Amino acid sequence: MAYSWVNSAEPIGADLHLELSGAGGRRAALIRALREAVRGGRLAPGTRLPPYRSLAADLGVARNTVADAYAELVAEGWLTARQGSGTRVAQRVEPLGGARVPRKAPPRAHGPRHDLRQGTPDASAFPRVAWAASYRRALTRAPNEAFGPGDPAGRVELREALAEYLARARGVRTEPSRIVVCSGFAHALRLLFHGRVLRGPLAVESYGLGFHREVLAAASVRTVPLALDEDGARVDGLDRERAVLLTPAHQFPTGGPLRPERRAAVVDWARARGGLVLEDDYDGEFRYDRKPVGAVQGLDPDRVVFIGSVSKSLSPALRLGWLVLPERLVEAVLEAKGEREAWASVPDQLALADFVVSGAYDRHVRRMRQRYRARRDRLVAALAVHAPHIEVTGIAAGLHAVLRLPPGTERSAVKAAAWRGVALDGLAAFRHPEARGDAPDGLVVGYATPPEHAYGAALEALCGVLPPA
Amino acid sequence: MAYSWVNSAEPIGADLHLELSGAGGRRAALIRALREAVRGGRLAPGTRLPPYRSLAADLGVARNTVADAYAELVAEGWLTARQGSGTRVAQRVEPLGGARVPRKAPPRAHGPRHDLRQGTPDASAFPRVAWAASYRRALTRAPNEAFGPGDPAGRVELREALAEYLARARGVRTEPSRIVVCSGFAHALRLLFHGRVLRGPLAVESYGLGFHREVLAAASVRTVPLALDEDGARVDGLDRERAVLLTPAHQFPTGGPLRPERRAAVVDWARARGGLVLEDDYDGEFRYDRKPVGAVQGLDPDRVVFIGSVSKSLSPALRLGWLVLPERLVEAVLEAKGEREAWASVPDQLALADFVVSGAYDRHVRRMRQRYRARRDRLVAALAVHAPHIEVTGIAAGLHAVLRLPPGTERSAVKAAAWRGVALDGLAAFRHPEARGDAPDGLVVGYATPPEHAYGAALEALCGVLPPA
Repeated sequence: MAYSWVNSAEPIGADLHLELSGAGGRRAALIRALREAVRGGRLAPGTRLPPYRSLAADLGVARNTVADAYAELVAEGWLTARQGSGTRVAQRVEPLGGARVPRKAPPRAHGPRHDLRQGTPDASAFPRVAWAASYRRALTRAPNEAFGPGDPAGRVELREALAEYLARARGVRTEPSRIVVCSGFAHALRLLFHGRVLRGPLAVESYGLGFHREVLAAASVRTVPLALDEDGARVDGLDRERAVLLTPAHQFPTGGPLRPERRAAVVDWARARGGLVLEDDYDGEFRYDRKPVGAVQGLDPDRVVFIGSVSKSLSPALRLGWLVLPERLVEAVLEAKGEREAWASVPDQLALADFVVSGAYDRHVRRMRQRYRARRDRLVAALAVHAPHIEVTGIAAGLHAVLRLPPGTERSAVKAAAWRGVALDGLAAFRHPEARGDAPDGLVVGYATPPEHAYGAALEALCGVLPPA
Repeated sequence: MAYSWVNSAEPIGADLHLELSGAGGRRAALIRALREAVRGGRLAPGTRLPPYRSLAADLGVARNTVADAYAELVAEGWLTARQGSGTRVAQRVEPLGGARVPRKAPPRAHGPRHDLRQGTPDASAFPRVAWAASYRRALTRAPNEAFGPGDPAGRVELREALAEYLARARGVRTEPSRIVVCSGFAHALRLLFHGRVLRGPLAVESYGLGFHREVLAAASVRTVPLALDEDGARVDGLDRERAVLLTPAHQFPTGGPLRPERRAAVVDWARARGGLVLEDDYDGEFRYDRKPVGAVQGLDPDRVVFIGSVSKSLSPALRLGWLVLPERLVEAVLEAKGEREAWASVPDQLALADFVVSGAYDRHVRRMRQRYRARRDRLVAALAVHAPHIEVTGIAAGLHAVLRLPPGTERSAVKAAAWRGVALDGLAAFRHPEARGDAPDGLVVGYATPPEHAYGAALEALCGVLPPA
């Protein structure tokens, strides 16, 4: 698909050519194409973009697709929108002549004014001093062979630390030999499915991360959505699937835990059918109002693959995660990983082992739990005052909450938020394309992302864009 | 394929079942199966293994396959071989009851007595103090966003440092925006071919790393071998391939540089046919007798992808590498890498940037160049005394040399070495399966791998296993 237009608002008529290609659907492709045009200087600051209607007609896409793309780029700061003056290329975007400067800005360097997207911890809270101390100690103590080719299972120091920590903090029953270190959750999925350790079809929750579905689709794994209700995933819907991927501690993104009967039922299913449960414990450490919900893995270590990482608890910049495996799968996962460690930094693995063993990890998690709980409380309080008609759910745990909206208002709320510089996603963005049943309206609010000083303003902006009662 | 035998040398007759499956051919599968049987305790210490002949017959493999597998496991310390007593499970291998201890030992923790395998720098020489200082400085100076989701291109600090360093040290012409950080050479290949940035067929040198061919085969890329002569790869053999993978600075493993006329010719081919040159600069910094050979990339940055890493210069434990790309390929490689950095540790990237900019990288490379040159000189001197009939080639650069052997003696020399606890590979291990023409006999001797204090003994052991004049 391509589109050209002559830019009449510019002294020099610019003939702009947009190619909609690549992954992620038309909306994503259009966002990418426009962003590139601005970044590369083909769309100069101040240039007026065509009205939704005409661009949509020319590209053969829905009007809403164009509106959403513009809104996203406004939120990202590439475009500005003002009543009466249309959508224009923002003045503060410098045209990047040639390729002297980085083509691709870090994802959030020029991000939205208020970032309430889910998925990222407060980057300003990374424990630099404690981590550097662990790194230094680890480097000093490491045997020489640590700087040679690495064991693909990961450093034994880290696997020992994790076995102890996960038993204590998450109720995981394992031993170091059943742990394989990886670069994060997506890498774990790749090892299991691209590495042909497991095959589809894979049951998944009807709401989840689209990125995970993409990773699975790239391995030709069919995903079958399971309905969700107030007790969690409807695991009674499991049938001939070989495995099921769940977020039992805190359903992502709707927010509830998987109730005990469902936990027992899914393990029973796995035993009866020879199935496997993949437990995505993405934010299991962050439960605010009572003891953390233990891992399903503890019920049957031979039927559950437990997957975790430091991406929420410490930082996604470290690229460290782990799989806790039934013994029979260990060799296959190691085969998939390769003869040597090709991914996870060994010094970082050793630093994390020290960080866990020295107690610094527990201290950091405790500190962040307090901080995030305070933010959650502020969110709930702000809504009680400014939008008492909006129900907040999924608040017992994690780094995000869901604001339930009146039916039919989600899309316009997301758009309104984008126009006001508030980046967040609607529930629809997480819905499995084949999900059946109700599609409730809601906003997924990540309250961990902003630095501490910016959170108040972000909350205020959020309250300003919610639909009226 | 499966095999069972009753072990008559053991008090309890053990019925051992071997499954030959998985990647890498029958020899590799047999090695794996035997190693697992020993490691898991199914083959107890002292157990006598069946003679080559009978195991080969029962498994339906060549006798040499069994002999090679036994020799490899002797070299690794799992088995022992003594004249008259056959091959037995080594006494020092503890039977691993259950899974209390790591199932998989780090690749070289229980390695051979003398490790002269190519591919790894001296792990004992990792510059711990200087690296820790860089890491600490980098962590202190990093902006907060460094601990959020990472730019898939890699940190700009590192790309800027690399652009300057590679220009100065390797004659690479580029800018930070054309560099993409990755986890090492194999990751670079995966991004290019699994990510569908490039397609096969790909011409390769007729000698190279089998692991790279495996990565390419997994992406269904057909590789076409190019003959080698004293001037390097016969690039006049290039035809309709879309790209060619070369090791111009130091052909791997045979050891010569690609001569200037060949460099010019391969760039001409790329221009004329719209082809691409992939330049694997795996050890370009280590040239001993004159100035390093500059990168082919400098001849035409739009026709060459230059790929490097710290795996030889610093350590394979860091998992850091880079692609220097023609501008038109940058976006496609970033698409293949994903929306966020999912692989390379961001703190490590920042540490490497500091390490390069502060001059510590140059100092380390200089120091290691002196050390490896001294080792090379000792190798040459030892051979001159103990095996003057053996020619040493490929010694002008790199971390390994090739010992040319009399025709027909390579296999027995490798086996003899293994029996004496000397791990190294023969040239045959690197030959492309479809290569035509001469298959000279030779040993690839990695002189960087042993720690300094162990090098003398390794050399002595090596000289003891060479075929007589």
